[in-house]
Amino acid sequence: MGGYDQTLRPFLWRAERLHPGQEVVSRTHEGIVRNTYAEFGDRTRQLANALEDVGVGDGDRVATFCWNHHRHAEVYFAAPNIGGQLHTINPLLPAEHVQYIVENAQDKVLLVDQSLLEPLEAAYDEEAFASVEQFVVMSSSLPETSLEPVTDYESFIDEYDSEYDWPELDEDTPAGMCYTSGTTGKPKGVEYTQKMLWSHTMASLTPQGLGIEETDVIMPVVPMFHVNAWGLPFSTTAAGAKHVYPGPSPDPADLVSLIEDEGVTMTAGVPTVWLGVLEYVENHGADLSSLERIIIGGSAAPESLIKKYDDLGVEVVHAWGMTEMSPLGTVAHLKADLEDLSPEEQYAKQAKQGLIVPGLEFRVVDDDGEEVPWNGDDFGELWIRGPWVTDSYFKRPDANEADFEGSWLKTGDVVTVDEDGYIQIVDRAKDVIKSGGEWISSVELENKLMAHDAVSEATVVGVPHEKWQERPVAFVVPTDDAEMDEAEFHEEIESFVAEDYPNWWTPDAVVHIDEVPKTATGKFDKKVLREEYADEDLLGDD
Amino acid sequence: MGGYDQTLRPFLWRAERLHPGQEVVSRTHEGIVRNTYAEFGDRTRQLANALEDVGVGDGDRVATFCWNHHRHAEVYFAAPNIGGQLHTINPLLPAEHVQYIVENAQDKVLLVDQSLLEPLEAAYDEEAFASVEQFVVMSSSLPETSLEPVTDYESFIDEYDSEYDWPELDEDTPAGMCYTSGTTGKPKGVEYTQKMLWSHTMASLTPQGLGIEETDVIMPVVPMFHVNAWGLPFSTTAAGAKHVYPGPSPDPADLVSLIEDEGVTMTAGVPTVWLGVLEYVENHGADLSSLERIIIGGSAAPESLIKKYDDLGVEVVHAWGMTEMSPLGTVAHLKADLEDLSPEEQYAKQAKQGLIVPGLEFRVVDDDGEEVPWNGDDFGELWIRGPWVTDSYFKRPDANEADFEGSWLKTGDVVTVDEDGYIQIVDRAKDVIKSGGEWISSVELENKLMAHDAVSEATVVGVPHEKWQERPVAFVVPTDDAEMDEAEFHEEIESFVAEDYPNWWTPDAVVHIDEVPKTATGKFDKKVLREEYADEDLLGDD
Repeated sequence: MGGYDQTLRPFLWRAERLHPGQEVVSRTHEGIVRNTYAEFGDRTRQLANALEDVGVGDGDRVATFCWNHHRHAEVYFAAPNIGGQLHTINPLLPAEHVQYIVENAQDKVLLVDQSLLEPLEAAYDEEAFASVEQFVVMSSSLPETSLEPVTDYESFIDEYDSEYDWPELDEDTPAGMCYTSGTTGKPKGVEYTQKMLWSHTMASLTPQGLGIEETDVIMPVVPMFHVNAWGLPFSTTAAGAKHVYPGPSPDPADLVSLIEDEGVTMTAGVPTVWLGVLEYVENHGADLSSLERIIIGGSAAPESLIKKYDDLGVEVVHAWGMTEMSPLGTVAHLKADLEDLSPEEQYAKQAKQGLIVPGLEFRVVDDDGEEVPWNGDDFGELWIRGPWVTDSYFKRPDANEADFEGSWLKTGDVVTVDEDGYIQIVDRAKDVIKSGGEWISSVELENKLMAHDAVSEATVVGVPHEKWQERPVAFVVPTDDAEMDEAEFHEEIESFVAEDYPNWWTPDAVVHIDEVPKTATGKFDKKVLREEYADEDLLGDD
Repeated sequence: MGGYDQTLRPFLWRAERLHPGQEVVSRTHEGIVRNTYAEFGDRTRQLANALEDVGVGDGDRVATFCWNHHRHAEVYFAAPNIGGQLHTINPLLPAEHVQYIVENAQDKVLLVDQSLLEPLEAAYDEEAFASVEQFVVMSSSLPETSLEPVTDYESFIDEYDSEYDWPELDEDTPAGMCYTSGTTGKPKGVEYTQKMLWSHTMASLTPQGLGIEETDVIMPVVPMFHVNAWGLPFSTTAAGAKHVYPGPSPDPADLVSLIEDEGVTMTAGVPTVWLGVLEYVENHGADLSSLERIIIGGSAAPESLIKKYDDLGVEVVHAWGMTEMSPLGTVAHLKADLEDLSPEEQYAKQAKQGLIVPGLEFRVVDDDGEEVPWNGDDFGELWIRGPWVTDSYFKRPDANEADFEGSWLKTGDVVTVDEDGYIQIVDRAKDVIKSGGEWISSVELENKLMAHDAVSEATVVGVPHEKWQERPVAFVVPTDDAEMDEAEFHEEIESFVAEDYPNWWTPDAVVHIDEVPKTATGKFDKKVLREEYADEDLLGDD
């Protein structure tokens, strides 16, 4: 009947033909590199020929261990367009994870930044890397390295023709791959089909998504090793917009000068980056007049950050997604009927994870699998499904059983949805405390406790309870001048928590600790506390 | 791996949940009707229950014979969402075509406007309509009619529950259907799968498509019986925007008052509608301040029309598509790098059919199947493929063989593509004149001839020629005061055509006629002339 395969090929073709003079600008260790879409297309096809010549065929994985630059963007299109699979590896992972990932994915070619040779060489293991037949260093001459066989990128592609007849691919062909750096267990591989990337690209272009226009100048600061830089290299190309890549380890000064020099209109990254830029701007001044909006994701954007950029004339657009979702799920656009709210009320809306993007469906379910009402209070686990959401992990039937239910991805995020449809994450499913059939948000309790003068840091963990299933216990790092013992502390927080929450939210016990254990990425590591206190009778109900 | 089915269900769900108070406004023969999305959703589910109860199941066709109104929009979602197929019938077709279509499609339920009862009753034929088990008149009480069994729409849905658990559908399920009213032969049925409608909806939302935002107020004047009103009921819903339906046979005054009263920001239809509105506005005045853009398609928008609306502060966005393409193919947005052109040069670009929408691919091929260069001069037939393009006609293997080539739809349009990528239709493939290996545009010759003072109307037809394959012959209606015979005329136009075209474009003969024969829709009917002059030796080369 119809419905031709959805692949990335038409996006690159359209960009090259309609916007041959549009630019792909890249900060590299060799300086600013400036290509047109015409050159970008030619180089991508040269790379396609080179990859094919080293034996990359249907379904073979082309791995990258790279920051954000034009060569990386060329791999983004060359590998999937020839029927291969782009596999972006996070170079910040511990060596044993890199080994696991390369072996698990059976990568055939691995492209690595010059500045990331050291961690890759450190992770190199003959057995784990046995599938890799070619290393390519992302530079124009070959630096010293122990990797082999190895060549530099420009030599790798230079001898090849810029003609390549892209094949007609089945839309279910795997086109991309990214491992989630889960806090527990081994990384889980998520594969992206051509169809998933196509759908995600179209959804990103819509005004309800990121609203990318031809006149935009897009700078993804979110790393290209992290869920395809939120798909921006694809959507920017589909829009025919200008690309700006900030290169290896950009600092705030680098980002600001790229915004100023290239006229960046939209950029994207995690909150800490934008806090850093803000501080830089406050101290050094900057011309951000071209910048219309910053897409913030990865973790929650504080209201204060949204407000401060608003004062600078830059809209912070809070978005939320997951590796499993290619990643875009929600965007906190302000709805038209909320335009009469006060600025503070608007910031509060914009600080939530946002509104579901068209084309997806979600539900928020409690323990009984019932949907919770959209009232901003009741919470449950967020389930999502849609054309750019995965339905399984690569070679991980164990995880699949836990994380999927029919067509739904169980996100593991516990959320509320308010009357206006804004989703807000209140906890991770594994951390929420299930007490007497009700759920208590450990994150909300922690935030409340940390607002107390005598508390320096706090984390709250659910502890098994015979009658209530679980009860909250607070692990508190007191401030230096706090002089309460645990019992006094417990009494103190009882009334403090009651200011905002029902009395059954009050932790049943308070434990003094010296420091909250943290994960490699700085998040509270409750697993450590759970293990450490597993045998203790914290609730005194033995 | 992932890539959940693409269906219409999530669009309606999102609109209802995120924008329950948004309006669906409709001019009907019973006055203005105003529903919220919440009510629209409830009524759609009531209709779903009613359809199911009269036996509509998977793959069954629900036909409409209706103008643009809210009840029609409800059928747009109810029929596909339950797994049925929305089949919009053009009520302006001759009775024998309606009979053919109903019988060919085997429609099970047929919903008809009160104002269209007469043509439907006239087309009714017991044998052709044997599959129709229920007629429904789009009104709140039952008018007199010979159709049976029959009920009115409100009675049809009234007793049913507004709960309905939409099924999870396969994206390849047929969801829509529309017959092309070809100038020759029987109408050909085009089926739209769920995936095609989903893809088309997403593409319509993008800024490179129609750029539909939540704050838009969309009034489709293009009939809902014509390629789903260019998909606007779907895309408007997906955006969460306000719908405005102009009802049966709207005249310019009706359209203007809807624009004024409802704050329409975007509307869409064929050029003649907007010429009429322009004339009305010039004579009566109007407040078009809410109106940002008019999507014009169906036939070419004259530059003068674009300019006049520009003077009123309304952007005319020229778009082109086909029934076979759901229908959106190109949109004549002005590219960023053309903003320095003079207004006249810009109008000239905007008067072309436009730039390909992201997600589609096209090629323009000559007789040898070679792609022609993008230079604005060379022309060839336009071939298109993509996720919302059909790959076959319903039960018409004969037509399929002629109109498709591999994954490509052969559009039958002969076009040029200029250096900037703007496509311009210069002829229909069957009318282009193939002379000595080169193509001559009959349409361009006609336009040139009609610019001559002595010519009232002209049409140009290719006549078989032994040496050159075909040669052009002009059929000319002279003005009343023209006093040249055919030979003199021929001499006269020789130099006139040479002003703009190579000398081999000059028609080999001129034939005086009293009137150019026209089709039912007012287009030049060259077939009649070809038949009438088939035995004449027009070129004098016997």
